[in-house]
Amino acid sequence: MADAKDKSFYCEVCLAGAGGQGLQLAGVILARAVALYEDRKVIMTSSYGPEARGGASKTELIISQEEIIYPKPTSLDIVLIMSSEAADKFGDSGKDGGILIADSTFVMKPPREPWLPFPITRTARAEFGTPLVSNIIALGILCGVTGIVKEDSLREAVAGRVPPRTKEINLAALARGIEMGKEKAQAKA
Amino acid sequence: MADAKDKSFYCEVCLAGAGGQGLQLAGVILARAVALYEDRKVIMTSSYGPEARGGASKTELIISQEEIIYPKPTSLDIVLIMSSEAADKFGDSGKDGGILIADSTFVMKPPREPWLPFPITRTARAEFGTPLVSNIIALGILCGVTGIVKEDSLREAVAGRVPPRTKEINLAALARGIEMGKEKAQAKA
Repeated sequence: MADAKDKSFYCEVCLAGAGGQGLQLAGVILARAVALYEDRKVIMTSSYGPEARGGASKTELIISQEEIIYPKPTSLDIVLIMSSEAADKFGDSGKDGGILIADSTFVMKPPREPWLPFPITRTARAEFGTPLVSNIIALGILCGVTGIVKEDSLREAVAGRVPPRTKEINLAALARGIEMGKEKAQAKA
Repeated sequence: MADAKDKSFYCEVCLAGAGGQGLQLAGVILARAVALYEDRKVIMTSSYGPEARGGASKTELIISQEEIIYPKPTSLDIVLIMSSEAADKFGDSGKDGGILIADSTFVMKPPREPWLPFPITRTARAEFGTPLVSNIIALGILCGVTGIVKEDSLREAVAGRVPPRTKEINLAALARGIEMGKEKAQAKA
């Protein structure tokens, strides 16, 4: 994956999980973070179907410094997996050397090696009293592990996009996710 | 365009306007309406870039009864234009025989013929006291003119997706849009 400061920056991301986990919103927040605060181009593709009711769904993003010609990812740099069904369907969709992050609350065994398991939904429930912030914790982890988006950009985008009365809890969830991501990235290094 | 009851239903839609007009949300609502309540497949592609700050932006949807293989629209059946910049960039992007709907509040001359101009934002301001419901009026018009989505599906999807305290005004805006769309469709027939 290219360095975030590189002018030739180009990165493909897949957020996969179950309908209702808020990954489409997570995608919008990530897209707005890099487009509004880092002047990058983003194309986001979301599929809706029976999965909108709960089956495996995915949202894909291409983030680029330059114009994006072809809208479909061809070589995923980062894959986030939030459910066991998504692990079965998309767990092995990343490129060789890409980063695989998974919610170990639901994904018990590695869809492939290497992987980075995090207890995302378990943390949401235990520390925030609701699974609803799992998507924001996941975004934080993605930021902490990969550095593809700046923390400040993500904070602005979260604050601007979640319902006002949930802003505080979501910003706390984001901070927790960033912390979790950085810890593991450092432990790994 | 295929009939909505047809099993071979396939339709490509482009929603184009300025950043901040809520067309990405309109796309999500349309996608969820047909995916959740009509068991169709949808792929939605949104581009984010400098346009997220106000320039011309677009959201494209492919709505299909069957699995969608190629995610990029190739022949737009329906184009909605909500700003003059979007009219310049995307006003002529529909297929021959396709439907072009434009917000005559901002688009003064036809980007192509035939077209269906509606005072969308003007109606939002005059009848609802805010331009913020323009995107929902536009969705209603799209439904009233084309019939690609059922009124009930769209009502459910709007109610489930807008902030709770804005549900009432958005449902009223949707009803007004449907009425405007049907009136013009009948006048044309």
